[in-house]
Amino acid sequence: MYVIGERINGMFADVKQAIREKKADVIQELARRQMAAGAWALDVNVGPAVADGKGAMLWLVETIRAVSDAPLAIDTAKWEVMAAVVPQVPGHVILNSSKADPEIAAKYAGLAAEHNGSLIGLTIDAAGVPGNSEKRVELGAQLIATAMEAGLPTDRLFIDPIILPVNVSSKTPVDCLEAIAQIRAFSDPPPHLLLGLSNVSQRCSNRGLINRTYLSMCIAKGLDSAIMDPLDTELINSAITAELLTGKMIYCDSYLEAARSSKQ
Amino acid sequence: MYVIGERINGMFADVKQAIREKKADVIQELARRQMAAGAWALDVNVGPAVADGKGAMLWLVETIRAVSDAPLAIDTAKWEVMAAVVPQVPGHVILNSSKADPEIAAKYAGLAAEHNGSLIGLTIDAAGVPGNSEKRVELGAQLIATAMEAGLPTDRLFIDPIILPVNVSSKTPVDCLEAIAQIRAFSDPPPHLLLGLSNVSQRCSNRGLINRTYLSMCIAKGLDSAIMDPLDTELINSAITAELLTGKMIYCDSYLEAARSSKQ
Repeated sequence: MYVIGERINGMFADVKQAIREKKADVIQELARRQMAAGAWALDVNVGPAVADGKGAMLWLVETIRAVSDAPLAIDTAKWEVMAAVVPQVPGHVILNSSKADPEIAAKYAGLAAEHNGSLIGLTIDAAGVPGNSEKRVELGAQLIATAMEAGLPTDRLFIDPIILPVNVSSKTPVDCLEAIAQIRAFSDPPPHLLLGLSNVSQRCSNRGLINRTYLSMCIAKGLDSAIMDPLDTELINSAITAELLTGKMIYCDSYLEAARSSKQ
Repeated sequence: MYVIGERINGMFADVKQAIREKKADVIQELARRQMAAGAWALDVNVGPAVADGKGAMLWLVETIRAVSDAPLAIDTAKWEVMAAVVPQVPGHVILNSSKADPEIAAKYAGLAAEHNGSLIGLTIDAAGVPGNSEKRVELGAQLIATAMEAGLPTDRLFIDPIILPVNVSSKTPVDCLEAIAQIRAFSDPPPHLLLGLSNVSQRCSNRGLINRTYLSMCIAKGLDSAIMDPLDTELINSAITAELLTGKMIYCDSYLEAARSSKQ
């Protein structure tokens, strides 16, 4: 399970304040703790309402790089921020994210390929978030084709079928399960399948329970990556156990510890 | 989720002693507690090493019936016990279980049909437990055909693809996930898909975590029933949440309580 830690995001109050006051230690501690807890990469998002998005993103990248060489997912919806920051990220960079419209995706995939990076492609186009699994699969296929044409290998493409909160749409969790299974089934080699997991439980009660249950279900369908909170121990335990039960590791009594230390 | 409570089983020390000493209150309390916790039916197994299996089973049935009209799953590998007990069970009876060999399954399905009961059919035949998903699917199809010929409607047939402990076979959990999806996909109407869940974690550490993670994964693949421990609150919460995320209910903040009370 390729876990991308979600905590360095300006929508969280501690990170928002750290960005505003340039408190590097807060960011570095979040980087260290997420990596120690089970993350393989770190998402980096300056959050809404930051005047100089590019400057804040570059400061975050530099601050994190001082303590970690983890792959960094540059999380911005603005092309100008992405285009300016990506060339300046030392080590592996993940572009988070592109929509599926071919003219947009081609630009992002080209930038990712140029910098030996990876790309998260959303199954959204000009018409918005699809209302069914079929359209998600269609846009997933479109993303795969566009990435290939742009010279980005499929194993550096992450398809995100876009999960909505279960209290807003009771059908979307089912549609995403189906889309994950189908995109994995038809493509060889398959891209990574990824979700912004926490979104499934936004403004719900029992958030932890909903997140870890849905993650286990998605792994059964072929999900192999998620942007999620690695500091949620029960969530990471569920992810490791689900991978054990899909045959990705051999059982031993200390399999939870073994999985954690094998990452180091 | 059709939960069949597993706790009235002579392999547990308290039940073994209660059977030996005819302590009805111990059995009745287990029946009441399992039903209150989320079971829809109760498994009844006298356990190994009981001299008069038929007599002990009839005593258990009578003892439970004094406090509950729940469907009872008569859990015995002996045909003579099954054939003697099933006609004497008031209310709904589930035969647990038959192997898939047609001559055996026909006998069990006929007995189930005759008493308006249900049948749990195992994907095991004379060659033993299959080593892959394909053979499980083949034996599942065989069980469906045999049940139909015997006059047992498919919605009263539960197919159990036989889970082995993950510490014994790392591949079986994957095979069962695949078999569940395929048997559900090819048959219309589909039978119920069931597992003896606790078996996946036998003699493992983190049993609760393994059980609830695997249950969520199986529900994503189409499992709709399990013989399991309803007294494990976290397990029942996972089952309810997984069903929420497959669109079987609409979210509300008290969805866990709502699901529990809707059963009553």
